Amino acid sequence: MRVTQTPATPLLDKVRIPADLKAVDDRDLPQLASELRAEMIDAVSRTGGHLGAGLGVVELTIAIHKVFDTPKDRLIFDVGHQCYPHKILTGRRDRIRTLRQEDGLSGFTRRAESEYDPFGAAHSSTSISAGLGMAVAADLSGDHRNVIAVIGDGAMSAGMAYEALNNAGALDARLIVILNDNDMSIAPPTGAMSAYLARLASGRTYMGFRDFGKKLTAYLGKKVDRAITRAVEHARGYVTGGTLFEEMGFYHIGPIDGHSFEHLLPVLRNVRDNSKGPVLIHVVTQKGKGYPPAEAAADKYHGVNTFDVITGAQAKAKPNAPAYTSVFAEALVQEAGFDEKIVAVTAAMPNGTGLDKLAAAYPSRTFDVGIAEQHAVTFAAGLAAEGYKPFCALYSTFLQRGYDQVVHDVAIQGLPVRFPIDRAGFVGADGPTHAGSFDTTYLATLPGFVVMAAADEAELKHMVRTAAAYDDGPISFRYPRGEGVGVEMPARGEILEIGKGRLIKQGSKVALLSFGTRLADCLLAAEDLDAAGLSTTVADARFAKPLDHDLVRQLARHHEVLITIEEGAVGGFGSHVLQFLAMEGLLDHGLKVRPLVLPDIWMEQAKPDAMYAKAGLDRAGIVSTVFQALGQKAVGIGAAG
Amino acid sequence: MRVTQTPATPLLDKVRIPADLKAVDDRDLPQLASELRAEMIDAVSRTGGHLGAGLGVVELTIAIHKVFDTPKDRLIFDVGHQCYPHKILTGRRDRIRTLRQEDGLSGFTRRAESEYDPFGAAHSSTSISAGLGMAVAADLSGDHRNVIAVIGDGAMSAGMAYEALNNAGALDARLIVILNDNDMSIAPPTGAMSAYLARLASGRTYMGFRDFGKKLTAYLGKKVDRAITRAVEHARGYVTGGTLFEEMGFYHIGPIDGHSFEHLLPVLRNVRDNSKGPVLIHVVTQKGKGYPPAEAAADKYHGVNTFDVITGAQAKAKPNAPAYTSVFAEALVQEAGFDEKIVAVTAAMPNGTGLDKLAAAYPSRTFDVGIAEQHAVTFAAGLAAEGYKPFCALYSTFLQRGYDQVVHDVAIQGLPVRFPIDRAGFVGADGPTHAGSFDTTYLATLPGFVVMAAADEAELKHMVRTAAAYDDGPISFRYPRGEGVGVEMPARGEILEIGKGRLIKQGSKVALLSFGTRLADCLLAAEDLDAAGLSTTVADARFAKPLDHDLVRQLARHHEVLITIEEGAVGGFGSHVLQFLAMEGLLDHGLKVRPLVLPDIWMEQAKPDAMYAKAGLDRAGIVSTVFQALGQKAVGIGAAG
Repeated sequence: MRVTQTPATPLLDKVRIPADLKAVDDRDLPQLASELRAEMIDAVSRTGGHLGAGLGVVELTIAIHKVFDTPKDRLIFDVGHQCYPHKILTGRRDRIRTLRQEDGLSGFTRRAESEYDPFGAAHSSTSISAGLGMAVAADLSGDHRNVIAVIGDGAMSAGMAYEALNNAGALDARLIVILNDNDMSIAPPTGAMSAYLARLASGRTYMGFRDFGKKLTAYLGKKVDRAITRAVEHARGYVTGGTLFEEMGFYHIGPIDGHSFEHLLPVLRNVRDNSKGPVLIHVVTQKGKGYPPAEAAADKYHGVNTFDVITGAQAKAKPNAPAYTSVFAEALVQEAGFDEKIVAVTAAMPNGTGLDKLAAAYPSRTFDVGIAEQHAVTFAAGLAAEGYKPFCALYSTFLQRGYDQVVHDVAIQGLPVRFPIDRAGFVGADGPTHAGSFDTTYLATLPGFVVMAAADEAELKHMVRTAAAYDDGPISFRYPRGEGVGVEMPARGEILEIGKGRLIKQGSKVALLSFGTRLADCLLAAEDLDAAGLSTTVADARFAKPLDHDLVRQLARHHEVLITIEEGAVGGFGSHVLQFLAMEGLLDHGLKVRPLVLPDIWMEQAKPDAMYAKAGLDRAGIVSTVFQALGQKAVGIGAAG
Repeated sequence: MRVTQTPATPLLDKVRIPADLKAVDDRDLPQLASELRAEMIDAVSRTGGHLGAGLGVVELTIAIHKVFDTPKDRLIFDVGHQCYPHKILTGRRDRIRTLRQEDGLSGFTRRAESEYDPFGAAHSSTSISAGLGMAVAADLSGDHRNVIAVIGDGAMSAGMAYEALNNAGALDARLIVILNDNDMSIAPPTGAMSAYLARLASGRTYMGFRDFGKKLTAYLGKKVDRAITRAVEHARGYVTGGTLFEEMGFYHIGPIDGHSFEHLLPVLRNVRDNSKGPVLIHVVTQKGKGYPPAEAAADKYHGVNTFDVITGAQAKAKPNAPAYTSVFAEALVQEAGFDEKIVAVTAAMPNGTGLDKLAAAYPSRTFDVGIAEQHAVTFAAGLAAEGYKPFCALYSTFLQRGYDQVVHDVAIQGLPVRFPIDRAGFVGADGPTHAGSFDTTYLATLPGFVVMAAADEAELKHMVRTAAAYDDGPISFRYPRGEGVGVEMPARGEILEIGKGRLIKQGSKVALLSFGTRLADCLLAAEDLDAAGLSTTVADARFAKPLDHDLVRQLARHHEVLITIEEGAVGGFGSHVLQFLAMEGLLDHGLKVRPLVLPDIWMEQAKPDAMYAKAGLDRAGIVSTVFQALGQKAVGIGAAG
């Protein structure tokens, strides 16, 4: 039982919206920060969610809202993991304990949710582009507003951020970029930019400059001290133009202490009142700041379950079956032990994709390229071109970032890059920005691509081995977030025949053809249908491409109803089945075919099971579709509910 | 009549493959360059193609092949526009006059074409990623080979190049990047990086440093001259770490003269023999070098038709109808005159997309963001969030680069960004890397997206106005490369009703439902079918999404055969029609439906008309499909051929 009380927050209680901050004295802001932190910790302890990022920007968020005039001034948080303090300060405190719940507040910023969220986020590194568009719009309209983009150092590894900086520097628009440097995104950041920022943030660059001045002074004697210092200062800008951001056309301020109002307020006020072109303020913060369990944790409590505020102990889910991510990772480690050509690539998600396990076993064969999906895909293609067997492991939604590279560098060249696609289908609390809805559609349309989906965790293990063994071109296999269904696991995966599905259960009137983990619901639906006198066949397609033509042909010829089902949007597996049926003339004779796909809406956050039910892709939805196809009512099929 | 003789090339004749270069004395290389240039000019004068880029890298290409040991050493050209000299030197000279023709050499590098093309290209900015993958593979295998990526300065505006640099600097792999800086990609480059490179290339940075040394020396007196110089040199690296590339972890050499073998050979030999980690060699070249008409032209003869070698005069096509690109551009300029909220974004293709016309009329409302499609899309989303009406004009194939941004920043937020999609369908000589095959599939699968295709140039004009008027969410309209069909043009476009197609011709037995410019072939096919006694309806769907349900329902209910046709791959328009028909039960009663889509292969370069014929998407293909659906043979329908 929870015994923690909601914290007392007398000052925060007076701040309902940012305008209320005007009445708070600068000297009282540390107290406000303390209360805001306590409120946020309490809320997230009840809901779970992203904690560390928000804790790191409590002072920064207060300072921005204190100095700027939101929502007239536009404040854009990159990714949005860090937006909870912002939500509390912008009229949403009364709903903060609904975070990430069905019908509750989003875990990210969202235009539809508040006028204080001028641009929604969730995927990384979009804020500078969006902010630049808004800054240009303000210039075109003659509006004198500020546009502030807050972006983490990890997000700076993405090419998109660079494209935006590059364009901002050229357009000379009045844009304020706040680089929130906590040396930690979801995983520790990687890449040369990260090292560079660390050098800047550690002060070595500036210290180095001062050291140099001292050394030169000592060498030349004191009399030239000031002149030299001035000359060398001049040289710093003159010789190389200054920091990387200055080279990109930004006025660069910092690094400054992001937890000190004495640093933040004067800098922000100065920028507000005096800046003209693009400005970058480099702010150093500590992820998890102010909550000792978070500060002490390796991941800084990036994403947490509900937890005990006093001890920081997180509630542990008791899984009935291994998570798909773990099954994938362990199978890959196993296969990598048999084949030294197997290598793997992750884009800043070693833990999320499970590749940390491969990295532990085979560090030199595991590559974290940073938040850089475009590069990840083509880097993998380069490895494949040299005879390696790269597994480029991304979430379905993030693979969208590398789509052109998948088409142009992998598929057109027929290079055998393996794409394990995690988080395929609904993802629950992360909502529509993270749902993996489109991968089957956008991959299966590509000539020569092998597109698989695992029906359960044993199938996933087979597909890891199948992908490792397949060397004739690109191959993907998708699997959802969460746990498997508890099937018995083989000691090692088998090599599946490419383009062959499997018949699970033979019936005669209705055929259910599943692609992916809806198979479990198909089997339950078949029980209901059989019980209703409708003899039902169930098959697992395994492949959306190449499609198992024999299997589809048999199902079409020998059944009155054919249902296809997948955790994907229109254009994917079902569309490939329909295309084949239509072109073969198998629809010419009255087959009642019903392709079940994700509904054509952006489904809001909820528990995945609830989402599939709402989408009609569960046991009841399947049964109901069959009855409708047959012109019968499903009433009375109690088990289908 | 052509009177030009093939040039005499005695030295080049001895160089069949790069190994033959070993026997050529360094002092004879300028002569070889001269002959190679002449050969290339002659070839392109006969075939058309990309001239300026290749002329700029003649010396560089020779120098690389002279110094390195290709194909064991891997040479990757970014984009590939500049690869013609490379093709001539690598065993393909005998086919160089088949460039970009059906069954001829590709206009880009291609793995399938030569072992000297270790990684194919065509889209920009992929070479560093691919090269890094290959360099890492060499390290893993213990192979001592060099990997050289040649990339233009324009390509450096793409985030993908930055992602790769960032990763290369961190991995410390042995990769050689040659930055071919000609201050000119297809259009003059844009962005802060471009300005930075210009500063580097102009020598101002280094001059500045030397100037500073001189000034300091003058101030302090001669006696400290050498010590100061040394100290300041030290400071240069110490204070800020050096150039931007050095910050990214590269050893940086240059700028050097890319037309001087005296510069190129020692630097390349030094790098080959001594480099360990990543190296960037900054080479300055002149696009179009050595051919006066190209040097004098604004676009440096980037892409040319066949031309007269003596005068440089290019053959002019005599169009029968305006090009779709021009129709789009003029319609947009017209609408922009009525609505000052209309703005437009191009990613380094102002001329290719026609936005140069808008820029001429409304410079402050037209934005060229550089080769940066990810940023282009989200920048447009930022403008839309502020009430502007952005037209984000990209080629179909390049929109793939911004797909995640289309999903995440535009579609999920329901922002009214307009996407004019040029080069949709087959593009002819540029081949599979530039075909616009997938846009309908990957866009129409997104909830809330309006997806249109223009059937002719008048329809395109309507769609420009429709998109300008539509403010409820994202909207796209696709149109092909090349000329319209010569229909009468309205003075101004009309606002089309969203989700409504149009019936062109009413028949009773066969229905042809077209999405896009295949409509013309549908009308021709209908003539043949009517003549054969098969009364044929023809309709233009206009919208793949929202689909015109009434129209589709009518066609399905009142015809025996329904053909859908589009210039796109499976998963697009036809799949949406099938999905609707199936879920509505309209397939339950024996409708013979045949969705015609692009074949499931990567179609090689040829004339678009030949490609559509091969794909079965022309008049004859449609007729033949109808006859097959009806179980009849199409023999005897002469007009269908």
